[in-house]
Amino acid sequence: MISAPDYPSPFYRLDALSRRWNINLWVKRDDLIPQWMGGNKVRKNFGILNAACKNGAAPDVLITNGGAESNHARVVALMGAQLGCQVHLVLHGQKPDANTVGNSFFYRSAGAITHYVDSQEIGSTIQRLEQGCVEKRQSVCVIPGGGHAAEGVEAYAEAVAELPEGPEYIVHASGTGGTQAGLLMGVKQQGWNTAVVGISVARAKQRGIEEVVKLLPAGFPEERVDFRDGYRFGGYEQYSPELMAFVKSVIRAEGIPLDLTYTGKAMFGLAQLVESGEIVSGSRVVFWHTGGLLNLTSMNL
Amino acid sequence: MISAPDYPSPFYRLDALSRRWNINLWVKRDDLIPQWMGGNKVRKNFGILNAACKNGAAPDVLITNGGAESNHARVVALMGAQLGCQVHLVLHGQKPDANTVGNSFFYRSAGAITHYVDSQEIGSTIQRLEQGCVEKRQSVCVIPGGGHAAEGVEAYAEAVAELPEGPEYIVHASGTGGTQAGLLMGVKQQGWNTAVVGISVARAKQRGIEEVVKLLPAGFPEERVDFRDGYRFGGYEQYSPELMAFVKSVIRAEGIPLDLTYTGKAMFGLAQLVESGEIVSGSRVVFWHTGGLLNLTSMNL
Repeated sequence: MISAPDYPSPFYRLDALSRRWNINLWVKRDDLIPQWMGGNKVRKNFGILNAACKNGAAPDVLITNGGAESNHARVVALMGAQLGCQVHLVLHGQKPDANTVGNSFFYRSAGAITHYVDSQEIGSTIQRLEQGCVEKRQSVCVIPGGGHAAEGVEAYAEAVAELPEGPEYIVHASGTGGTQAGLLMGVKQQGWNTAVVGISVARAKQRGIEEVVKLLPAGFPEERVDFRDGYRFGGYEQYSPELMAFVKSVIRAEGIPLDLTYTGKAMFGLAQLVESGEIVSGSRVVFWHTGGLLNLTSMNL
Repeated sequence: MISAPDYPSPFYRLDALSRRWNINLWVKRDDLIPQWMGGNKVRKNFGILNAACKNGAAPDVLITNGGAESNHARVVALMGAQLGCQVHLVLHGQKPDANTVGNSFFYRSAGAITHYVDSQEIGSTIQRLEQGCVEKRQSVCVIPGGGHAAEGVEAYAEAVAELPEGPEYIVHASGTGGTQAGLLMGVKQQGWNTAVVGISVARAKQRGIEEVVKLLPAGFPEERVDFRDGYRFGGYEQYSPELMAFVKSVIRAEGIPLDLTYTGKAMFGLAQLVESGEIVSGSRVVFWHTGGLLNLTSMNL
């Protein structure tokens, strides 16, 4: 089992942006979860790995997949190292330079074994690695890419209870859908009427909604899955000078980091929803900061 | 005035390193102070700037100096932006590339005006900028480089009260001496017998001690200023493969970031003090993490 510090991530009001947008805006700083370099993948994998530790014992081997600068891969690598596991990361995309300090620096530091493959070879590579473990009589746990599993959803449902009260909106960066599904579950468990708005960082609307729905219990009202694909700036890791200028304006106003892959797009989407009048003056909004600084530092700007 | 979230920085036990070194080791994570990208310069400049805000009003202009990737300059730039100040940064060293995501990215984002000069021109440049403000009838506050001021020392004296009890050792990265002076004052105020061990990141022993002593009240016993210059790896921002391997071993063990400029050297020094037997088995030690991730991300490894 792995242990974590027993306190909630920081939560506080963003005064300057509240004034700018004439709303009441708070931020939930999951990027500042102390261990494993923080972010939403920490909550998810903490749940997944503790479930995978049968009778408290860790598997011999962990296998997971992600992009070349995957936050999820970094967390699995660091948690796995602490558990004494051998960690295999099956990664797609351009292999990062050895002098890049992003997620890749941390999973290299953690001693993970990396396999760079084409997207269509991810499944077969995982299968081959898993088979190799079975032949060596090693216990193995294959963790879904992105921490996209029931325990990850549950972790975000529990995280909602860290908020002092139910806001009218929770806005966050929505990727593979696990965080959004968890937040929706958590809001329901609290009995709140909060709208959970996922700003897509990659997927088109229909696909995005489908993936969130798959993670929700049968009968969960699909119309509550609010997934916006209008602020993607061309897709995953894509951005424009407009997004960069926006991110800098938030850094200037509040002294908090946003990146161009996740939280920058989510905050941009929030700004647009305020500007369009959909989120009205005086609304109580929580911006859930899911992390991503290492995606910014590893980017070739 | 600027406001900050009202809770202490995280504090928790480092189990794996405690086992490795057979001591009781905790970490105080000032790198995770939520605003202005965290680190010890946040505590210092928060004290300095709130003192500079006469009757609650901020000066028109802030001027300070630092290295090209200065944590202090980043904090002054971000805090100044929030206060509505014009901020001039007088910086020495190689001007960072525009695509580097380190402190320079954040002070550029904050809109600070940068002046890159040779070391020997720092004083005259500040004087010229200050004179220009006076001529324009602007109120101006010149903040000492590094936040090396009484308010900064006081901020660290107060920070010590966040610890639940007095350890036998506090170990930290010691640069210009303000943090060390503050920690020494804080320990005295608590009535503890804690040894505050500063691991030098740049200065030789005699100079380092002198600078700490200058910041302490008259009569403070100089023999309590424990400043070690044996783990500098050649000086400021210098490092070796040995230090890099050590930093990676700590990342692997605990999932926490260390950099090669500050905290990596401090933790390396701690490891050496344990290995040499100077810090004996079972000792209660707090490693005070003063920040520095952006020094790592901006480094050309």
